[in-house]
Amino acid sequence: MTIQPKLTLVGAGPGDPDLITVRGASALASADVVLYDALANRELLTYARRGVPKVFVGKRRGEHAYTQDEINALLVEYALLYGNVVRLKGGDPFVFGRGFEELEYAARYNVPGEYVPGISSAIAVPGILGMPVTSRGASESFWVIAGTTASGEVSRDLHIAASVDATVVILMGAGKLHEIVEVFALHGRHATPAAIIQNGSLPDARFVTGTVESIASAAEEEGIGSPAVIVIGKVVRLAELCTIAGSPGCSSPSKARSSIHDS
Amino acid sequence: MTIQPKLTLVGAGPGDPDLITVRGASALASADVVLYDALANRELLTYARRGVPKVFVGKRRGEHAYTQDEINALLVEYALLYGNVVRLKGGDPFVFGRGFEELEYAARYNVPGEYVPGISSAIAVPGILGMPVTSRGASESFWVIAGTTASGEVSRDLHIAASVDATVVILMGAGKLHEIVEVFALHGRHATPAAIIQNGSLPDARFVTGTVESIASAAEEEGIGSPAVIVIGKVVRLAELCTIAGSPGCSSPSKARSSIHDS
Repeated sequence: MTIQPKLTLVGAGPGDPDLITVRGASALASADVVLYDALANRELLTYARRGVPKVFVGKRRGEHAYTQDEINALLVEYALLYGNVVRLKGGDPFVFGRGFEELEYAARYNVPGEYVPGISSAIAVPGILGMPVTSRGASESFWVIAGTTASGEVSRDLHIAASVDATVVILMGAGKLHEIVEVFALHGRHATPAAIIQNGSLPDARFVTGTVESIASAAEEEGIGSPAVIVIGKVVRLAELCTIAGSPGCSSPSKARSSIHDS
Repeated sequence: MTIQPKLTLVGAGPGDPDLITVRGASALASADVVLYDALANRELLTYARRGVPKVFVGKRRGEHAYTQDEINALLVEYALLYGNVVRLKGGDPFVFGRGFEELEYAARYNVPGEYVPGISSAIAVPGILGMPVTSRGASESFWVIAGTTASGEVSRDLHIAASVDATVVILMGAGKLHEIVEVFALHGRHATPAAIIQNGSLPDARFVTGTVESIASAAEEEGIGSPAVIVIGKVVRLAELCTIAGSPGCSSPSKARSSIHDS
């Protein structure tokens, strides 16, 4: 049998295993090897055939299992050795996932690439808590920004984002929450609603809502940490309408796990 | 049997029926009635049980089947009459879909809501053509804007978006392409790469790439129309690397359906 090398990037979605796509599930079922990240739910590995190697290449709490260079090399090595490599990544592979770099590297070795989109936490996590990223009257656009950039500083885009009406969604920003809200406060946005949500689509989701002024200390008080989605904008307030069971405005079991902090 | 009214908003994804989530497919399977939009692929209706009413409430070419008020009223009426109403919407229900308004309306009649996220065209459609919305060195954030706002004018956010480095993704903008690129040109962005993609995740996908200066006439020449995704930013150029079969840089069948216009 000839090996047909291939790299299939698959978005695992925001955590809940049922939020993978039908195509993502069938890509896993045809994988010859799976390389998965910390943010990809391990339950998804059951879609892959028995005996197929499943390799964890993620990081947790700053502890790297592999560097990006090592992952790139592994992807090509495995594609040549096994055939179809499924690279399972949390959320969508092209949203801050360095997925494109992996495809680019593989293409240099003539390993063809495929991309199977995933549900991005940026949209789904606020949504699950009753905060739509767009809604007439509240927001007609949304801007998704990485809280931590390659250089380790907060994104310069935040300064411009702090001066517009768009819903601002920040991923990978839990560790920089203080610096992030400071940028918004600098632009006079103290009273703008804000939320931080940890493990948004999972049963152990935790969140706080408040304002730019109150959210950082509230998050600290409640011990909200990574991985988290930060939302800044009027849409945060829509969660109080309780259109979805479990959203912050509802008296529901999740109420006990969350707090609303007004300043 | 008691009727248990419920409204389940389900994201149908960008067109390809396999890009619905596993949860979306099972929500359809438990629907007592389905109301679907023009952008939701009709093949998805096969997930619903036989005999379940499937009602088209979308619009095509400006022709409204129902107004939003009529849809809201129908949703509640059907929930009380049938039970679980699945509202199937193209892309993600909270991305310019007026989905939140529907949940809000239903909540007023004590019809509980659920939200099942969908793959948004804003991320997936460029990605499928080899244009990641984020990539180190090219873009560290992305901003999703509606090309046509409630007032019928181009969004004011575009003026700010034209002055930042973010990848700008515009949905529902095909009919306003001229006005949109004019805003970018006003800010000196003539040479910024741009693309417009019609039916992005479907076999009949068509697209052109070029620059802010060339894209509108190129789109006209090729007859690219709605529904389309417009992408403005450096990431458009990444498609030329041909990391994904079918992306504009590849010599592939889709090449025949597309053109690259440099100015």
